[in-house]
Amino acid sequence: MASRNVEKLDLSFSAVPDKPKKDWVIVYLRILAFLATASATLVMALNKQTKHFVVATIGTTPITVSITAKFQHTPAFIFFVIANGVASLHCLMMIGVDILGPQFDYKGLKPVLIPILDMMSLVLASAGDGAATFMSELGRNGNSHARWDKICDKFGSYCNRGGAALIASFIAIILLLIITVMSINKLKPKK
Amino acid sequence: MASRNVEKLDLSFSAVPDKPKKDWVIVYLRILAFLATASATLVMALNKQTKHFVVATIGTTPITVSITAKFQHTPAFIFFVIANGVASLHCLMMIGVDILGPQFDYKGLKPVLIPILDMMSLVLASAGDGAATFMSELGRNGNSHARWDKICDKFGSYCNRGGAALIASFIAIILLLIITVMSINKLKPKK
Repeated sequence: MASRNVEKLDLSFSAVPDKPKKDWVIVYLRILAFLATASATLVMALNKQTKHFVVATIGTTPITVSITAKFQHTPAFIFFVIANGVASLHCLMMIGVDILGPQFDYKGLKPVLIPILDMMSLVLASAGDGAATFMSELGRNGNSHARWDKICDKFGSYCNRGGAALIASFIAIILLLIITVMSINKLKPKK
Repeated sequence: MASRNVEKLDLSFSAVPDKPKKDWVIVYLRILAFLATASATLVMALNKQTKHFVVATIGTTPITVSITAKFQHTPAFIFFVIANGVASLHCLMMIGVDILGPQFDYKGLKPVLIPILDMMSLVLASAGDGAATFMSELGRNGNSHARWDKICDKFGSYCNRGGAALIASFIAIILLLIITVMSINKLKPKK
Protein backbone atom coordinates (compact mmCIF):
# COMPACT_ATOMS: atom_id res chain seq x y z
CA MET A 1 0.00 0.00 0.00
CA ALA A 2 2.87 2.34 0.82
CA SER A 3 4.40 1.84 -2.62
CA ARG A 4 1.01 2.61 -4.25
CA ASN A 5 0.97 6.00 -2.58
CA VAL A 6 4.45 6.78 -3.88
CA GLU A 7 3.32 5.84 -7.36
CA LYS A 8 0.30 8.14 -7.17
CA LEU A 9 2.57 10.96 -6.05
CA ASP A 10 4.81 10.32 -9.04
CA LEU A 11 1.90 10.37 -11.46
CA SER A 12 0.73 13.76 -10.37
CA PHE A 13 4.11 15.15 -11.36
CA SER A 14 4.76 13.33 -14.62
CA ALA A 15 1.21 13.51 -16.01
CA VAL A 16 1.09 9.91 -17.28
CA PRO A 17 -2.31 8.76 -15.99
CA ASP A 18 -2.27 5.27 -17.49
CA LYS A 19 1.00 3.93 -16.09
CA PRO A 20 -0.36 1.12 -13.87
CA LYS A 21 -2.69 -0.01 -16.68
CA LYS A 22 0.23 -0.15 -19.12
CA ASP A 23 2.20 -2.32 -16.68
CA TRP A 24 -0.56 -4.92 -16.68
CA VAL A 25 -0.77 -4.96 -20.47
CA ILE A 26 2.95 -5.76 -20.63
CA VAL A 27 2.53 -8.52 -18.01
CA TYR A 28 -0.27 -10.14 -20.07
CA LEU A 29 1.84 -9.85 -23.21
CA ARG A 30 4.76 -11.46 -21.39
CA ILE A 31 2.53 -14.34 -20.29
CA LEU A 32 1.42 -14.85 -23.92
CA ALA A 33 5.04 -14.63 -25.10
CA PHE A 34 6.05 -17.17 -22.46
CA LEU A 35 3.33 -19.58 -23.61
CA ALA A 36 4.34 -19.11 -27.26
CA THR A 37 8.09 -19.60 -26.68
CA ALA A 38 7.53 -22.50 -24.28
CA SER A 39 5.23 -24.30 -26.72
CA ALA A 40 7.67 -23.68 -29.60
CA THR A 41 10.46 -25.17 -27.45
CA LEU A 42 8.45 -28.20 -26.34
CA VAL A 43 6.88 -29.01 -29.73
CA MET A 44 10.31 -28.88 -31.39
CA ALA A 45 12.10 -30.74 -28.58
CA LEU A 46 9.57 -33.59 -28.62
CA ASN A 47 9.49 -33.80 -32.42
CA LYS A 48 10.35 -37.29 -33.57
CA GLN A 49 9.04 -39.64 -36.25
CA THR A 50 10.05 -43.21 -36.98
CA LYS A 51 9.30 -44.73 -40.35
CA HIS A 52 9.87 -48.21 -41.69
CA PHE A 53 11.21 -48.56 -45.19
CA VAL A 54 11.27 -51.84 -47.13
CA VAL A 55 14.78 -52.21 -48.50
CA ALA A 56 14.59 -55.75 -49.88
CA THR A 57 12.33 -58.78 -50.04
CA ILE A 58 13.51 -62.35 -49.38
CA GLY A 59 10.80 -64.71 -50.60
CA THR A 60 7.70 -62.97 -49.30
CA THR A 61 9.19 -61.49 -46.11
CA PRO A 62 10.13 -57.84 -46.54
CA ILE A 63 13.31 -56.58 -44.91
CA THR A 64 12.56 -53.22 -43.34
CA VAL A 65 14.84 -50.52 -42.04
CA SER A 66 13.44 -48.06 -39.53
CA ILE A 67 14.69 -44.51 -39.83
CA THR A 68 13.95 -41.96 -37.14
CA ALA A 69 13.81 -38.23 -37.84
CA LYS A 70 14.66 -36.29 -34.67
CA PHE A 71 15.23 -32.63 -34.08
CA GLN A 72 18.68 -33.47 -32.63
CA HIS A 73 19.86 -34.46 -36.10
CA THR A 74 19.78 -30.85 -37.28
CA PRO A 75 22.01 -28.31 -35.50
CA ALA A 76 19.66 -25.47 -36.52
CA PHE A 77 16.79 -27.11 -34.61
CA ILE A 78 18.96 -27.61 -31.52
CA PHE A 79 19.79 -23.91 -31.63
CA PHE A 80 16.07 -23.15 -32.11
CA VAL A 81 15.20 -25.13 -28.97
CA ILE A 82 17.95 -23.41 -26.94
CA ALA A 83 17.01 -19.93 -28.19
CA ASN A 84 13.29 -20.35 -27.54
CA GLY A 85 13.98 -22.02 -24.19
CA VAL A 86 16.14 -19.09 -23.07
CA ALA A 87 13.50 -16.61 -24.32
CA SER A 88 10.76 -18.41 -22.38
CA LEU A 89 12.87 -18.37 -19.20
CA HIS A 90 13.47 -14.67 -19.76
CA CYS A 91 9.69 -14.10 -20.08
CA LEU A 92 9.07 -16.03 -16.87
CA MET A 93 11.75 -14.05 -15.03
CA MET A 94 10.40 -10.74 -16.30
CA ILE A 95 6.84 -11.64 -15.23
CA GLY A 96 8.27 -12.15 -11.74
CA VAL A 97 10.12 -8.83 -11.91
CA ASP A 98 7.01 -7.02 -13.19
CA ILE A 99 4.83 -8.39 -10.40
CA LEU A 100 7.32 -8.21 -7.52
CA GLY A 101 9.30 -5.38 -9.12
CA PRO A 102 8.19 -2.20 -7.35
CA GLN A 103 9.57 -3.59 -4.09
CA PHE A 104 13.10 -3.74 -5.47
CA ASP A 105 15.51 -1.20 -6.92
CA TYR A 106 13.70 1.17 -9.28
CA LYS A 107 15.98 4.18 -9.57
CA GLY A 108 19.17 2.36 -10.44
CA LEU A 109 19.90 0.07 -13.37
CA LYS A 110 16.53 -1.68 -13.55
CA PRO A 111 14.57 0.56 -15.97
CA VAL A 112 17.38 0.32 -18.53
CA LEU A 113 18.26 -3.31 -17.85
CA ILE A 114 14.74 -4.58 -18.63
CA PRO A 115 14.56 -3.27 -22.25
CA ILE A 116 18.16 -4.41 -22.82
CA LEU A 117 17.37 -7.94 -21.60
CA ASP A 118 14.10 -7.93 -23.61
CA MET A 119 16.04 -6.89 -26.69
CA MET A 120 18.71 -9.55 -26.17
CA SER A 121 16.24 -12.40 -25.80
CA LEU A 122 14.41 -11.12 -28.89
CA VAL A 123 17.68 -11.12 -30.85
CA LEU A 124 18.47 -14.66 -29.71
CA ALA A 125 14.96 -15.93 -30.53
CA SER A 126 15.12 -14.25 -33.93
CA ALA A 127 18.45 -15.92 -34.78
CA GLY A 128 16.99 -19.28 -33.76
CA ASP A 129 13.89 -18.67 -35.88
CA GLY A 130 15.94 -17.62 -38.91
CA ALA A 131 18.04 -20.76 -38.67
CA ALA A 132 15.11 -23.16 -38.18
CA THR A 133 12.92 -21.50 -40.83
CA PHE A 134 15.42 -21.85 -43.65
CA MET A 135 16.39 -25.36 -42.59
CA SER A 136 12.70 -26.35 -42.66
CA GLU A 137 12.30 -24.72 -46.04
CA LEU A 138 15.17 -26.92 -47.24
CA GLY A 139 13.49 -29.99 -45.76
CA ARG A 140 10.24 -29.14 -47.51
CA ASN A 141 11.53 -28.08 -50.94
CA GLY A 142 15.06 -29.45 -51.13
CA ASN A 143 17.80 -27.68 -53.07
CA SER A 144 18.44 -29.06 -56.53
CA HIS A 145 21.64 -27.02 -56.99
CA ALA A 146 23.30 -28.63 -53.97
CA ARG A 147 21.58 -31.98 -54.63
CA TRP A 148 19.86 -31.91 -51.28
CA ASP A 149 16.57 -33.81 -51.62
CA LYS A 150 13.49 -32.83 -49.68
CA ILE A 151 12.64 -35.09 -46.77
CA CYS A 152 9.13 -33.86 -45.96
CA ASP A 153 7.59 -36.25 -48.48
CA LYS A 154 8.91 -39.10 -46.31
CA PHE A 155 8.54 -37.58 -42.85
CA GLY A 156 5.25 -35.69 -43.20
CA SER A 157 4.13 -35.46 -39.59
CA TYR A 158 7.68 -34.62 -38.42
CA CYS A 159 7.61 -31.66 -40.82
CA ASN A 160 4.12 -30.60 -39.77
CA ARG A 161 5.05 -30.58 -36.09
CA GLY A 162 8.20 -28.60 -36.93
CA GLY A 163 6.01 -26.13 -38.84
CA ALA A 164 3.73 -25.79 -35.81
CA ALA A 165 6.77 -25.00 -33.63
CA LEU A 166 7.85 -22.37 -36.17
CA ILE A 167 4.40 -20.73 -36.19
CA ALA A 168 4.43 -20.60 -32.36
CA SER A 169 7.89 -19.02 -32.46
CA PHE A 170 6.81 -16.43 -35.07
CA ILE A 171 3.93 -15.43 -32.78
CA ALA A 172 6.47 -15.25 -29.95
CA ILE A 173 8.77 -13.01 -32.02
CA ILE A 174 5.92 -10.57 -32.75
CA LEU A 175 4.94 -10.51 -29.05
CA LEU A 176 8.57 -10.03 -27.95
CA LEU A 177 8.93 -7.21 -30.50
CA ILE A 178 5.83 -5.45 -29.10
CA ILE A 179 7.11 -6.01 -25.53
CA THR A 180 10.57 -4.62 -26.34
CA VAL A 181 9.11 -1.55 -28.07
CA MET A 182 6.83 -0.99 -25.06
CA SER A 183 9.63 -1.36 -22.54
CA ILE A 184 11.88 1.02 -24.52
CA ASN A 185 8.92 3.40 -24.77
CA LYS A 186 8.48 3.25 -20.99
CA LEU A 187 11.77 5.11 -20.65
CA LYS A 188 10.40 8.03 -22.65
CA PRO A 189 7.89 10.03 -20.57
CA LYS A 190 10.37 10.66 -17.77
CA LYS A 191 12.45 12.84 -20.08
CA MET B 1 26.18 28.13 -32.48
CA ALA B 2 22.75 28.90 -31.06
CA SER B 3 22.04 25.21 -30.59
CA ARG B 4 25.34 24.76 -28.74
CA ASN B 5 24.31 27.30 -26.17
CA VAL B 6 21.00 25.55 -25.65
CA GLU B 7 22.86 22.32 -25.08
CA LYS B 8 25.14 23.89 -22.49
CA LEU B 9 22.13 25.26 -20.69
CA ASP B 10 20.58 21.80 -20.67
CA LEU B 11 23.72 20.25 -19.25
CA SER B 12 23.80 22.56 -16.29
CA PHE B 13 20.35 21.29 -15.34
CA SER B 14 20.69 17.59 -16.01
CA ALA B 15 24.26 17.10 -14.77
CA VAL B 16 25.44 14.84 -17.62
CA PRO B 17 28.79 16.38 -18.53
CA ASP B 18 29.89 13.82 -21.16
CA LYS B 19 26.92 13.89 -23.56
CA PRO B 20 28.63 15.33 -26.69
CA LYS B 21 31.57 12.90 -26.31
CA LYS B 22 29.22 9.90 -26.07
CA ASP B 23 27.46 10.98 -29.28
CA TRP B 24 30.73 10.76 -31.21
CA VAL B 25 31.53 7.30 -29.87
CA ILE B 26 28.18 6.08 -31.18
CA VAL B 27 28.80 7.70 -34.58
CA TYR B 28 32.17 5.93 -34.89
CA LEU B 29 30.57 2.64 -33.87
CA ARG B 30 27.84 3.18 -36.47
CA ILE B 31 30.47 3.81 -39.15
CA LEU B 32 32.21 0.55 -38.18
CA ALA B 33 28.88 -1.29 -38.15
CA PHE B 34 28.06 0.15 -41.58
CA LEU B 35 31.40 -1.05 -42.97
CA ALA B 36 30.89 -4.51 -41.45
CA THR B 37 27.31 -4.97 -42.70
CA ALA B 38 28.10 -3.50 -46.12
CA SER B 39 31.09 -5.79 -46.60
CA ALA B 40 29.08 -8.81 -45.42
CA THR B 41 26.39 -7.91 -47.97
CA LEU B 42 28.83 -7.36 -50.83
CA VAL B 43 31.04 -10.39 -50.17
CA MET B 44 27.98 -12.65 -50.03
CA ALA B 45 26.23 -11.02 -53.02
CA LEU B 46 29.30 -11.35 -55.23
CA ASN B 47 30.01 -14.92 -54.12
CA LYS B 48 30.16 -17.24 -57.10
CA GLN B 49 32.34 -20.14 -58.12
CA THR B 50 32.31 -22.13 -61.34
CA LYS B 51 33.88 -25.56 -61.48
CA HIS B 52 34.34 -28.00 -64.31
CA PHE B 53 33.69 -31.63 -63.65
CA VAL B 54 34.69 -34.45 -66.00
CA VAL B 55 31.60 -36.61 -66.48
CA ALA B 56 32.80 -38.88 -69.25
CA THR B 57 35.72 -39.47 -71.64
CA ILE B 58 35.31 -40.17 -75.35
CA GLY B 59 38.60 -41.43 -76.64
CA THR B 60 40.99 -39.04 -74.98
CA THR B 61 38.74 -35.97 -74.96
CA PRO B 62 37.06 -35.46 -71.60
CA ILE B 63 33.44 -34.27 -71.51
CA THR B 64 33.16 -31.64 -68.82
CA VAL B 65 30.15 -30.13 -67.14
CA SER B 66 30.54 -26.75 -65.49
CA ILE B 67 28.59 -26.20 -62.30
CA THR B 68 28.32 -22.78 -60.74
CA ALA B 69 27.72 -22.26 -57.05
CA LYS B 70 25.97 -18.93 -56.46
CA PHE B 71 24.51 -17.38 -53.35
CA GLN B 72 21.13 -17.05 -55.16
CA HIS B 73 20.77 -20.83 -55.11
CA THR B 74 20.24 -20.80 -51.34
CA PRO B 75 17.23 -18.88 -49.96
CA ALA B 76 19.02 -18.43 -46.61
CA PHE B 77 21.86 -16.53 -48.31
CA ILE B 78 19.38 -14.30 -50.20
CA PHE B 79 17.79 -13.46 -46.84
CA PHE B 80 21.27 -12.84 -45.38
CA VAL B 81 22.05 -10.35 -48.17
CA ILE B 82 18.70 -8.55 -47.70
CA ALA B 83 19.03 -8.45 -43.90
CA ASN B 84 22.60 -7.15 -43.93
CA GLY B 85 21.79 -4.70 -46.73
CA VAL B 86 18.88 -3.25 -44.74
CA ALA B 87 21.07 -3.07 -41.61
CA SER B 88 23.80 -1.21 -43.51
CA LEU B 89 21.25 1.28 -44.92
CA HIS B 90 19.94 1.75 -41.37
CA CYS B 91 23.48 2.47 -40.13
CA LEU B 92 24.01 4.99 -42.94
CA MET B 93 20.69 6.71 -42.17
CA MET B 94 21.46 6.83 -38.44
CA ILE B 95 24.91 8.35 -39.09
CA GLY B 96 23.09 11.10 -40.99
CA VAL B 97 20.59 11.55 -38.16
CA ASP B 98 23.37 11.64 -35.56
CA ILE B 99 25.35 14.28 -37.47
CA LEU B 100 22.45 16.43 -38.67
CA GLY B 101 20.17 15.37 -35.82
CA PRO B 102 20.21 18.24 -33.32
CA GLN B 103 18.68 20.55 -35.92
CA PHE B 104 15.54 18.44 -36.16
CA ASP B 105 12.88 17.31 -33.70
CA TYR B 106 14.47 16.27 -30.42
CA LYS B 107 11.65 16.39 -27.88
CA GLY B 108 9.13 14.29 -29.75
CA LEU B 109 9.40 10.72 -30.96
CA LYS B 110 13.05 10.78 -32.00
CA PRO B 111 14.83 9.68 -28.78
CA VAL B 112 12.60 6.60 -28.56
CA LEU B 113 12.48 5.92 -32.28
CA ILE B 114 16.27 5.60 -32.63
CA PRO B 115 16.72 2.70 -30.14
CA ILE B 116 13.61 1.01 -31.57
CA LEU B 117 14.98 1.22 -35.13
CA ASP B 118 18.44 0.11 -33.91
CA MET B 119 16.81 -2.85 -32.18
CA MET B 120 14.78 -3.79 -35.26
CA SER B 121 17.72 -3.77 -37.64
CA LEU B 122 19.69 -5.82 -35.09
CA VAL B 123 16.85 -8.37 -34.92
CA LEU B 124 16.69 -8.56 -38.72
CA ALA B 125 20.48 -8.94 -39.07
CA SER B 126 20.49 -11.60 -36.36
CA ALA B 127 17.78 -13.63 -38.14
CA GLY B 128 19.78 -13.41 -41.38
CA ASP B 129 22.95 -14.49 -39.59
CA GLY B 130 21.23 -17.41 -37.91
CA ALA B 131 19.87 -18.62 -41.25
CA ALA B 132 23.14 -18.25 -43.16
CA THR B 133 25.29 -19.71 -40.37
CA PHE B 134 23.40 -22.98 -40.13
CA MET B 135 23.08 -23.27 -43.91
CA SER B 136 26.86 -22.82 -44.20
CA GLU B 137 27.42 -25.37 -41.48
CA LEU B 138 25.34 -27.79 -43.56
CA GLY B 139 27.41 -26.99 -46.66
CA ARG B 140 30.62 -27.62 -44.74
CA ASN B 141 29.68 -30.76 -42.79
CA GLY B 142 26.62 -32.13 -44.54
CA ASN B 143 23.90 -34.01 -42.67
CA SER B 144 24.15 -37.77 -42.88
CA HIS B 145 20.68 -38.29 -41.33
CA ALA B 146 18.96 -36.36 -44.12
CA ARG B 147 21.48 -37.62 -46.75
CA TRP B 148 22.58 -34.08 -47.55
CA ASP B 149 26.21 -34.26 -48.67
CA LYS B 150 28.66 -31.49 -47.95
CA ILE B 151 29.52 -29.29 -50.90
CA CYS B 152 32.48 -27.39 -49.49
CA ASP B 153 34.90 -30.11 -50.58
CA LYS B 154 33.94 -29.25 -54.18
CA PHE B 155 33.42 -25.50 -53.89
CA GLY B 156 36.20 -24.54 -51.50
CA SER B 157 36.68 -20.88 -52.34
CA TYR B 158 32.88 -20.32 -52.53
CA CYS B 159 32.66 -21.61 -48.96
CA ASN B 160 35.61 -19.56 -47.78
CA ARG B 161 34.15 -16.34 -49.16
CA GLY B 162 30.81 -17.22 -47.53
CA GLY B 163 32.67 -17.75 -44.25
CA ALA B 164 34.31 -14.32 -44.61
CA ALA B 165 30.87 -12.75 -45.11
CA LEU B 166 29.64 -14.53 -41.99
CA ILE B 167 32.60 -13.29 -39.92
CA ALA B 168 31.94 -9.72 -41.09
CA SER B 169 28.29 -10.09 -40.15
CA PHE B 170 29.15 -11.47 -36.70
CA ILE B 171 31.34 -8.41 -36.08
CA ALA B 172 28.40 -6.29 -37.30
CA ILE B 173 26.02 -8.04 -34.88
CA ILE B 174 28.34 -7.32 -31.93
CA LEU B 175 28.68 -3.67 -32.98
CA LEU B 176 24.90 -3.31 -33.49
CA LEU B 177 24.35 -4.88 -30.07
CA ILE B 178 26.70 -2.36 -28.42
CA ILE B 179 25.02 0.49 -30.37
CA THR B 180 21.53 -0.61 -29.36
CA VAL B 181 22.52 -0.95 -25.69
CA MET B 182 24.11 2.53 -25.86
CA SER B 183 21.09 4.11 -27.50
CA ILE B 184 18.72 2.51 -24.98
CA ASN B 185 21.06 3.67 -22.22
CA LYS B 186 20.90 7.23 -23.59
CA LEU B 187 17.27 7.37 -22.51
CA LYS B 188 18.27 6.71 -18.89
CA PRO B 189 19.93 9.80 -17.39
CA LYS B 190 16.98 12.06 -18.22
CA LYS B 191 14.85 10.16 -15.73
